[in-house]
Amino acid sequence: MKQSISVPTNNTCQLIDITSEVQKLVSSSHISEGIVTAFVAHTTAGITINENADPDVKHDILLQLENMVPQSDSFLHGEGNSPGHIKASMMGSSVSVIISGGRLQLGTWQGIYFCEFDGPRSRTVWLKIIEG
Amino acid sequence: MKQSISVPTNNTCQLIDITSEVQKLVSSSHISEGIVTAFVAHTTAGITINENADPDVKHDILLQLENMVPQSDSFLHGEGNSPGHIKASMMGSSVSVIISGGRLQLGTWQGIYFCEFDGPRSRTVWLKIIEG
Amino acid sequence: MKQSISVPTNNTCQLIDITSEVQKLVSSSHISEGIVTAFVAHTTAGITINENADPDVKHDILLQLENMVPQSDSFLHGEGNSPGHIKASMMGSSVSVIISGGRLQLGTWQGIYFCEFDGPRSRTVWLKIIEG
Repeated sequence: MKQSISVPTNNTCQLIDITSEVQKLVSSSHISEGIVTAFVAHTTAGITINENADPDVKHDILLQLENMVPQSDSFLHGEGNSPGHIKASMMGSSVSVIISGGRLQLGTWQGIYFCEFDGPRSRTVWLKIIEG
Repeated sequence: MKQSISVPTNNTCQLIDITSEVQKLVSSSHISEGIVTAFVAHTTAGITINENADPDVKHDILLQLENMVPQSDSFLHGEGNSPGHIKASMMGSSVSVIISGGRLQLGTWQGIYFCEFDGPRSRTVWLKIIEG
Repeated sequence: MKQSISVPTNNTCQLIDITSEVQKLVSSSHISEGIVTAFVAHTTAGITINENADPDVKHDILLQLENMVPQSDSFLHGEGNSPGHIKASMMGSSVSVIISGGRLQLGTWQGIYFCEFDGPRSRTVWLKIIEG
């Protein structure tokens, strides 16, 4: 079963918790055991799993990515969003989460974050659930 | 089949080879063809695949992550472990390895490493094997 | 079904678009719905998904990885290719792509890139397709 989540973003760089949307689609699939893969269909956005309790963690992740990947005159890509492309590859294009008893198996503090690195835009995450 | 591996860590930052523990659970599953996903249930730890021959590779990976993500007064997260959160997202929360003939299909020099970035702690890796 | 792609590389660091080779093996599997995992069997090479339209994006990704992970006298690994090992873990050892109607489901600008970080070498990518 393939499904998708729409993610509107409203900043250049932003982490958006999509855990509950992913859980909703897992629940509606009625698959109780398996793996869900959440895949970002973009090249200046990524996806990661990190803490969903203190929002300052999101701030610090975005800040440090900015420190590591500043804009540079040495970049050749004409659109000017090379830092977004690089950060996207650093975070990765998909996450895989185990499904058990119909629920995402996440650690206590874990949430699934869509990572916008060249917004604001209308973004899409595709989900694929494999039973097993 | 979902199973877990306990990983006790004894340093702030540490790479721990869990390849043999993963292989053990794959073997006990009696699944000969498929994919195993190893998922870290934490937000200041990650997982990666890298060289398991020369232990200096582990040293160099940890050193360079430290260089790229130093502690900073600009971090807001009160627990003081923001570098651990950032490194966790850089390494990723899961790896997927092909199973063939009941064995992990790894390259000659590859091992699966649990990445501790805020230890020492008692950590958990969940495994999910999908037959196919 | 497990299959492999041979990737000859001809630079120290190089991104090579392997999307069409992956699609070819997906097509020959006659599996129309599922997930394909592409796994790099090496420790100084990685795999990532990024823009396949403007080749300057490849240049900028490689340049910034070089900026973030320069060669260093502090590295202990005797082979001198520690930057390659570190970049490999930053990009990751596998990507997962949804298959729908027998086609890789990629965003408009997405391609699958083999990432050489210690070439030139003869490299191998293993593919595993799980139906579902």
